[in-house]
Amino acid sequence: MTVAEALAALAPARRSEVLDIAPMLGAVPARDVIAGEQIPPYARATVDGFAVRAVDTYAASETLPAFVEVTGAVAMGRAPDGEVGPGAAMAIPTGGLLPHGADAVVMVEHTSEPMPGHVELMRRVAPGEGVLHPGEEAQPGDVLAPAGRPLRGADLGLLAAAGITEVAAHARPRVAIVSTGDEVVPDATRELSPGQVRDACAPALAGLVHEAGGDPVLRGIVSDDAAALEHVLSEAVGEDDMVVVSAGSSVGARDLTANVAGRLGRVVCHGLAVKPGKPTLLADCGGVPLVGLPGNPRSALVVFRLVGMPLVRVVGGVTAPPPEPSVSARLARDVPSAAGRLDVVQAAVDAGVATPLFGSSALLGPMVRADGWFCVPEADTGLAEGAVVLVRLYA
Amino acid sequence: MTVAEALAALAPARRSEVLDIAPMLGAVPARDVIAGEQIPPYARATVDGFAVRAVDTYAASETLPAFVEVTGAVAMGRAPDGEVGPGAAMAIPTGGLLPHGADAVVMVEHTSEPMPGHVELMRRVAPGEGVLHPGEEAQPGDVLAPAGRPLRGADLGLLAAAGITEVAAHARPRVAIVSTGDEVVPDATRELSPGQVRDACAPALAGLVHEAGGDPVLRGIVSDDAAALEHVLSEAVGEDDMVVVSAGSSVGARDLTANVAGRLGRVVCHGLAVKPGKPTLLADCGGVPLVGLPGNPRSALVVFRLVGMPLVRVVGGVTAPPPEPSVSARLARDVPSAAGRLDVVQAAVDAGVATPLFGSSALLGPMVRADGWFCVPEADTGLAEGAVVLVRLYA
Repeated sequence: MTVAEALAALAPARRSEVLDIAPMLGAVPARDVIAGEQIPPYARATVDGFAVRAVDTYAASETLPAFVEVTGAVAMGRAPDGEVGPGAAMAIPTGGLLPHGADAVVMVEHTSEPMPGHVELMRRVAPGEGVLHPGEEAQPGDVLAPAGRPLRGADLGLLAAAGITEVAAHARPRVAIVSTGDEVVPDATRELSPGQVRDACAPALAGLVHEAGGDPVLRGIVSDDAAALEHVLSEAVGEDDMVVVSAGSSVGARDLTANVAGRLGRVVCHGLAVKPGKPTLLADCGGVPLVGLPGNPRSALVVFRLVGMPLVRVVGGVTAPPPEPSVSARLARDVPSAAGRLDVVQAAVDAGVATPLFGSSALLGPMVRADGWFCVPEADTGLAEGAVVLVRLYA
Repeated sequence: MTVAEALAALAPARRSEVLDIAPMLGAVPARDVIAGEQIPPYARATVDGFAVRAVDTYAASETLPAFVEVTGAVAMGRAPDGEVGPGAAMAIPTGGLLPHGADAVVMVEHTSEPMPGHVELMRRVAPGEGVLHPGEEAQPGDVLAPAGRPLRGADLGLLAAAGITEVAAHARPRVAIVSTGDEVVPDATRELSPGQVRDACAPALAGLVHEAGGDPVLRGIVSDDAAALEHVLSEAVGEDDMVVVSAGSSVGARDLTANVAGRLGRVVCHGLAVKPGKPTLLADCGGVPLVGLPGNPRSALVVFRLVGMPLVRVVGGVTAPPPEPSVSARLARDVPSAAGRLDVVQAAVDAGVATPLFGSSALLGPMVRADGWFCVPEADTGLAEGAVVLVRLYA
């Protein structure tokens, strides 16, 4: 067997490729994306029918059709090989390029062919009818996609139509996730020693970072030790665009994070008027935002939705955030609250009724079982059964 | 220099890893994910304070505190090195393992230390107060994440807490995208010859497939030729879980797709009572759904949202689809419609007012400029200015 024969004899199966559309979908243009050319560049038919001079149809009707000669047919994807003169027509498919001379298209449904080479037009058309004009989709200089709004499916279509395959976009924010606590062990730990807990926060936060358009950078678990924490956080501040610390649940662990954050930057907030989530720390480390989250997993996730996800979007250049799913519902029971703080309540929603789900903020269960969450505003001292709340739904 | 010295002298910079959380986030469990163990396995403190026997606090008050001996301190992540006897207490941080003998934790805020080794408790506590009980998050056999609902951030946290790092999930559907038409050229084509258009549908559909939890498989552009189309479609039906064809805009191109689909399977629907989107084809090719979309890009995307995305979710095992963002708004003007068909209207929404955006269905612009879309139901002959519609928002 020759090499060529051997290769030919193999006929390996082809495997098609799964292309990664993700980098383009949801990308945030850094500046408006501008059309460089007319779209479409030429006039095209928007219906199947006959390209004509509109003036030839002015007297046409069902009872007295206009009678014109068919001088040819337009093929898809090619320049017409003829023109349309007075009293003439060319057959044209939807999307076909309008031939010179013609200024309208009569739908095939409004025509009949009494004999080969001729057609009867039973409807009058105005100039431009049945035609997509050059530049009707976009003129050079038109904004095709605005800066700051994540690209959606239809945007990808319009950019493709305009031949734009590259866009100047904000980099996806790298968001460091640091777990702290002598008690915290990796989630793959099979057997827990007494007192240990698996790291629930890091994977959950990674999911929320991804949802907000960022790339999570899992920087592992750090013990409650100032030097170790400072080493990891300073590295994160140097390499990443944002840093999130699940700050440990005890007062001591929280103080440790605050001290280290203070050495790496400026502490902006230490203690947020939110329940759950009071022990929240915000710092600015030379332009890199650092968020110290409460140690309880549910509190951490509540605060990250309130503060962290909007920050990820800001860092990612989003000025027009995507809409959130939500639903209005009546409260199934009274919800107590203290004035002066925002209360975040998990809720199951069924048939327009929101049932608050309570439980220790150390439990993730109420959030997992919830369909969404609502807020009791700072000014309120509680909400009564039957009150209407806006429940933001988990997607 | 020795090899070791040379290697040590280099000290290369470390580059942290961006972990891909995407495969787990949004994954659809094929069956309920069940807890295999108690979470937490041991009783833990939910506050910083002192582990006590509740009975020792029954007479305690601000004015007459209970006075107990502090016999030690619980360290995070370790078994306590002592027990709590009658009249005694151990210092404990939030998350610390409750020592034997203790059945409650008094918050540090309700204590004072008048002298080293002793503490005054100024509040009575009930047994179990300040304590997270074994199994309070989950008992063995509890459902941690239900089958058919895409995993959310909080789910990832709960699974991690339970030590579950692998989940039996439905495979992400491979969705073939086939573009047809002699006039269609790749979007990277710089200069269009007369009559050519760039392939706008494929990238836009890829985005929507991704949004619905599928992996787009771009199978390229096929000319209006029965043999070529059958070759590509039969390959797609053999390798992918679902096939989408942008069927060409002319009657001829649509007939071609219908003929080939009929040879590969059973045509279920040819013509849908939707505007835009009437020339829609649905076929079942041995369990692989085939969707033939209208040739106009906007019609194609409207139909794919209505029919294609729900199908991608079904193929992906989703039984509880994620909620869609939507908003109620009053119509800024009358919207005409014909009875017996569903009209899909693009709309800009501002301050509770929905302004319909019209234009040829050959234009993507109205969809790109829209905030969302609403439907005029089959039974209606139109909607009047001021009518309230539910606008589903593009995310």
